[in-house]
Amino acid sequence: MNWHIKRNRLNVEELINEESLFFLGNGYLGVRGNFEEGYPDESPTIRGTYINAFHDIIDIPYGEKLYGFPDTQQKMLNVQDTQSVHIYLGEEEELYTLEQGQVLNYSRKLLLDEGSTAREIYWKSPLGKELNIRFERLVSFVHRELFMIKLTLIPVNFSGKLKVVSSVSGDVENYVNEEDPRVATGEAKRLHLSRLLVNEDVGYIESQAEVSRLLAGCMTRHYTDVNAEMSVYKDDHSKQLLFEYVWEAEESVPASLTKRTIFVDSLRHEGDLYEAAIQLQQSLEDWRDDELFHKQKEYMVQFWRHGDVRVGGDFKLQEGLRFNLYHLLQSVGRDSYSNISAKGLSGEGYEGHYFWDTEIYMFPVFLMIAPDLARKLLIYRYSILSHAKNRAAEMGHQQGALFPWRTISGKECSSYFPAGTAQYHISADIAYSYIQYYQATGDTDFLLDYGVELLVETARLWMDVGHLNKNGFSINNVTGPDEYTAIVNNNYYTNVMAKHNLIWAVKAYQLAKRKNSKRVKDLAETLCLTKEELEEFKQAAVTMNLPYDSQFGINPQDDTFLNKAVWDMKNTPADEFPLLLHFHPLTLYRYQVCKQADTVLAHFLLEDEQDFETIRNSYNYYEKITTHDSSLSTCVFSMMAAKLGDLEKAFHYFGDSARLDLDNMHGNTKDGLHMANMAGSFMAIVFGFAGLRIKENGLHFTPKLPEQWSDYSFHVHGQGQLISACVTSQYMRLKLIDANRPVEVHVNGLHYRIKPDETLKVFLAD
Amino acid sequence: MNWHIKRNRLNVEELINEESLFFLGNGYLGVRGNFEEGYPDESPTIRGTYINAFHDIIDIPYGEKLYGFPDTQQKMLNVQDTQSVHIYLGEEEELYTLEQGQVLNYSRKLLLDEGSTAREIYWKSPLGKELNIRFERLVSFVHRELFMIKLTLIPVNFSGKLKVVSSVSGDVENYVNEEDPRVATGEAKRLHLSRLLVNEDVGYIESQAEVSRLLAGCMTRHYTDVNAEMSVYKDDHSKQLLFEYVWEAEESVPASLTKRTIFVDSLRHEGDLYEAAIQLQQSLEDWRDDELFHKQKEYMVQFWRHGDVRVGGDFKLQEGLRFNLYHLLQSVGRDSYSNISAKGLSGEGYEGHYFWDTEIYMFPVFLMIAPDLARKLLIYRYSILSHAKNRAAEMGHQQGALFPWRTISGKECSSYFPAGTAQYHISADIAYSYIQYYQATGDTDFLLDYGVELLVETARLWMDVGHLNKNGFSINNVTGPDEYTAIVNNNYYTNVMAKHNLIWAVKAYQLAKRKNSKRVKDLAETLCLTKEELEEFKQAAVTMNLPYDSQFGINPQDDTFLNKAVWDMKNTPADEFPLLLHFHPLTLYRYQVCKQADTVLAHFLLEDEQDFETIRNSYNYYEKITTHDSSLSTCVFSMMAAKLGDLEKAFHYFGDSARLDLDNMHGNTKDGLHMANMAGSFMAIVFGFAGLRIKENGLHFTPKLPEQWSDYSFHVHGQGQLISACVTSQYMRLKLIDANRPVEVHVNGLHYRIKPDETLKVFLAD
Repeated sequence: MNWHIKRNRLNVEELINEESLFFLGNGYLGVRGNFEEGYPDESPTIRGTYINAFHDIIDIPYGEKLYGFPDTQQKMLNVQDTQSVHIYLGEEEELYTLEQGQVLNYSRKLLLDEGSTAREIYWKSPLGKELNIRFERLVSFVHRELFMIKLTLIPVNFSGKLKVVSSVSGDVENYVNEEDPRVATGEAKRLHLSRLLVNEDVGYIESQAEVSRLLAGCMTRHYTDVNAEMSVYKDDHSKQLLFEYVWEAEESVPASLTKRTIFVDSLRHEGDLYEAAIQLQQSLEDWRDDELFHKQKEYMVQFWRHGDVRVGGDFKLQEGLRFNLYHLLQSVGRDSYSNISAKGLSGEGYEGHYFWDTEIYMFPVFLMIAPDLARKLLIYRYSILSHAKNRAAEMGHQQGALFPWRTISGKECSSYFPAGTAQYHISADIAYSYIQYYQATGDTDFLLDYGVELLVETARLWMDVGHLNKNGFSINNVTGPDEYTAIVNNNYYTNVMAKHNLIWAVKAYQLAKRKNSKRVKDLAETLCLTKEELEEFKQAAVTMNLPYDSQFGINPQDDTFLNKAVWDMKNTPADEFPLLLHFHPLTLYRYQVCKQADTVLAHFLLEDEQDFETIRNSYNYYEKITTHDSSLSTCVFSMMAAKLGDLEKAFHYFGDSARLDLDNMHGNTKDGLHMANMAGSFMAIVFGFAGLRIKENGLHFTPKLPEQWSDYSFHVHGQGQLISACVTSQYMRLKLIDANRPVEVHVNGLHYRIKPDETLKVFLAD
Repeated sequence: MNWHIKRNRLNVEELINEESLFFLGNGYLGVRGNFEEGYPDESPTIRGTYINAFHDIIDIPYGEKLYGFPDTQQKMLNVQDTQSVHIYLGEEEELYTLEQGQVLNYSRKLLLDEGSTAREIYWKSPLGKELNIRFERLVSFVHRELFMIKLTLIPVNFSGKLKVVSSVSGDVENYVNEEDPRVATGEAKRLHLSRLLVNEDVGYIESQAEVSRLLAGCMTRHYTDVNAEMSVYKDDHSKQLLFEYVWEAEESVPASLTKRTIFVDSLRHEGDLYEAAIQLQQSLEDWRDDELFHKQKEYMVQFWRHGDVRVGGDFKLQEGLRFNLYHLLQSVGRDSYSNISAKGLSGEGYEGHYFWDTEIYMFPVFLMIAPDLARKLLIYRYSILSHAKNRAAEMGHQQGALFPWRTISGKECSSYFPAGTAQYHISADIAYSYIQYYQATGDTDFLLDYGVELLVETARLWMDVGHLNKNGFSINNVTGPDEYTAIVNNNYYTNVMAKHNLIWAVKAYQLAKRKNSKRVKDLAETLCLTKEELEEFKQAAVTMNLPYDSQFGINPQDDTFLNKAVWDMKNTPADEFPLLLHFHPLTLYRYQVCKQADTVLAHFLLEDEQDFETIRNSYNYYEKITTHDSSLSTCVFSMMAAKLGDLEKAFHYFGDSARLDLDNMHGNTKDGLHMANMAGSFMAIVFGFAGLRIKENGLHFTPKLPEQWSDYSFHVHGQGQLISACVTSQYMRLKLIDANRPVEVHVNGLHYRIKPDETLKVFLAD
């Protein structure tokens, strides 16, 4: 049984991290795991509830502002706080608090199999009353807008009055830490109360973001199984709603109170938000709490059926893996307004912005276990294509689409362009995800509807930013994924990804044309796309400058990377990592030192571009100079170590990544979970040990088993079918689930066709 | 007669520019040429009075702040406004203003030969009274703290009451324009009133800067030759002092009133500032106005005797040249607190910061015409050496001194590091000026006192930032003078200047040792300087990587400059210049396009590092891709065109630079004068047409005469002696003035020794 993340001891210092670990979300709504009753001794907290993509617009300050620097950025807002519940015992109205009295027992659980949390406290009041308190929480996967807290109270050694005051607050603000560049600065108080009202037992708070004018509303209603006296108060001054329940409790008899809140926003809900909330609230009236919990569990069963990864013989990794997949599911946006932010919906780090992590780290996971959610991520990018075209123009390009390095609504939010806008590769990364989607699903309609256009517009960017010189088609002055090197010429990663983008702009056009030549003709006209232009794409791809150094037999990260001095890793004290917090960027740029996989990542994504020798040499070279200061790094090194046959190393890197947040290894889990790294742990198994690659002719596996495990199994989708896979020391077993047609796969280079009712067992050589 | 800059017509739109053109200063104090009576119709104005280096400290905002980004910057403050004088006519007290009545005659003059301004208005009031008004102004070169306005009134067609209200205001703030990156943003109101008092006829205002806590005080007292009734008011609310003078005027009889203000500050004046001001004010009591004007004129006579440049046959250039030299004299700091800011004391552009312009453009002018002032500039840099060492440490260097790109008090003020801190060359530029000073003066004591230490500390920076690789000693990730290319490897300019720095660290040590081996031994101990280290300096210099491209026969600006696409200058519309206001820096960095001379400047500064062919090829290459968007560019191209024998082009570039501000060619003269460019116009003649180079073995000339001129003459100092030089089509004539020993010079490669009473005439070949 490792479906539950447990804490059996109240560790006050860890609570702020647990807020992230125990957060609940459904891609639309995210609620941090704060305590209903608050913390003892004013322990630090980031109390937060977020609606994906719900943001305000804030000014970006500059000491020296140059042309094309964004004036403003978007910032995900902390919305209304509905987490508070206070309990008063007896006629004396002793307040239950962790500061006083005695905690006789304590446990908290994140139920990965049920999609909820449960927290239980057995408390003895200063006057000796003993009470068992249970908080269960749910952010519904079935009812998008619903957040629910179910409180169950059992008086252990007394009967008499119990009072519960449940509150909702519109007086909220975002968290600020000016010292850490990884956490947002900027004004915190951006959400202003616009409506505060009570209608019988229903309370409603609506607030408006200062500049974006977006509205967020929350409607709260309680259900109880006891005969309680209820009063509702609203306090305009403190912007709060208070729901008070008083009843006569009986010793040993459980009483429950459920607080259901509906969150609505003006991005997704048309018309009056109050009306929308009322309707949603009413539609849930006939649902009992247990039915809601049950529906949630059903959803989870279905999810794990398609997504579970099992590792035989390693409890801790197993725990990390499921934990990671669960939080990915909770964070992924499911509409054209939203995506997965760097911290998901678990915290405010990186201000709720979406980065390239989505396409390179998280998208492949969903593509394999939940292709419908993967498709939603692509649609989001399509929805901001016009912004990307505008940004390209603003950046001086005659054509093409340059996707923002960080954004919510589609406009560039990065103010430090050398490690922001200069990361042009994000446009190729997005193109790559479109290509992967097609390769995994064979969905030509998608190419017609979205793919061709996006691939052509991104290809056009490369045509405009690059130029042909004696070294081939060159792309100058961009920054690759490794942010310890910036504004370089011919970053291998960028160039090889751009090449792929250019090739597939042409291929996608041809594939779509084969499917529906009439529509493609219209599309070409709309895009002013000519045969000549497609030919230019091809030529640029063919002549693409992919730096190669014959002395080391590696792909240098860029034209001049190898001319730099090598960072003295050995003599850098451990407390000077991550380097970015201890060295000026110029210092870092001056050395051969990498924050994260760059060329090595390119070799993972496009392994057929280089021979095995070059890939191996490069891995060995970069491994020595990579600090893994970015959480996006170790999973890539794990996958590549597996490819190169060094399973020990692959295992070591995998371990680092799989429990990064569970063990707070980067020390900043409080700001939110490292979503891309979480995805990386799935990738490290499926793309790493099992060697999955998604190629034009289907799924390819090169399975290996680390000696620490007895076996491992996982699920992937290919050509619309669900495949269950298991790897032991002797074989790889593949089986279709609920399939209606055969699927083509490759294992260790050999082609197989799996029929719906067959099990394929490929024996592995020693 | 072209010693006077005149305006005979009141052009309201030009007034804001004239504020800069007619500013008066003395290196300590600067007063813009605002009108005592104000402008008509609320015309735009930047009303300003500045004390060199008097600053506040303001926060630098960042959207994303990384390690080593400066938290704060210094900002030169606009201090108390003592420029206002209002005149009331007759019993009706008609206020003289340019908005009403009629201006019958108008003139304003900047008297370059007298060091003052005069403005005369013949005005007819709405009621028909005609008054002749004359304002004469002086910022004294003799009495550092004195600013004086002398008002002379002549009633033309009436007798009767005249009232003059002269005011001083402590309610001042800095100018802000958020749209233009070349003008400072940031909070404007930083100076707060701390004392406002009146003692008989003396008024005093003292104010304090918000964060730096620096104090500035101004004491005003009036002198008049009429029997006027005087009243003094102080208004705490409006932070003003008002001095009212009323008398019975007689038709046609001139009456004068002089307003003398003493400016003191806590940087230079010890003890109570009020006491200091009183003493200074009193020390001037016995000086009549005409004596003060006379002393000023004497100072100017002496200055021009050492500094005048004459051009036969070109009135407009002649005017520009003298205008430029005059303003340089007004702006150069004369103490260890101050230097010459980019706009001198003429305006607030660049916030009063000191840049590399001082060493590379302005210092050589003073070195030639006023070596005592040149020396002061070097002492200022020495005074901030400890800051430079701290900054090097902060930037991750184990040793050495990295001078701030922009500063007042010595701490780095640049917030956009790719075109700021990354311009490491400033440390070599400062070293270069130390070397030039020694070469021009032969002052070995200076090396002992300052030179060796500064040269060693800057040399150490290069040892730490650079490293030896297969291409030689390489310096990576710096930005050269051309800001349209940033963060590059082996910028030719930086490397060759670093080489010079390293060589001269060793030479200076040796020269100083020869002079006083005991002191040098102590110095070496203090600096922990060993023979081995000096040997390392030499080795680094010898192996310095100086990029050379054999295909073009040029020095590429950096390792990869030539791999970039060439900017399409021909198809860039005129209104898209300067490019920095129309393109993102990344766009500019991506092309072969230069804001200003970079390699070409290096070839000017260190011409012996390359052969003539390489220098010529480079000039031709870079000329095509240089926009001259920086005002520091054309003078360099002028000098190098002269060297290469293209006098037509040299003349053309010279013309551009010599009148840049007089004709407001960059459209931003209102923000202050382009001091470096002004110096550049002197250099274009003396270092350009006359071909002066300061080398180890004395002054070298390669004189040439542009065909537009009949002849030109100028002055230079060499080995402590003043030399008058004249170039005609046939000869160069050199003559010592007040000399006590012979001087060695080279003309066209031949060595000459000029004796104190001789005139050397070198005939020039056709």
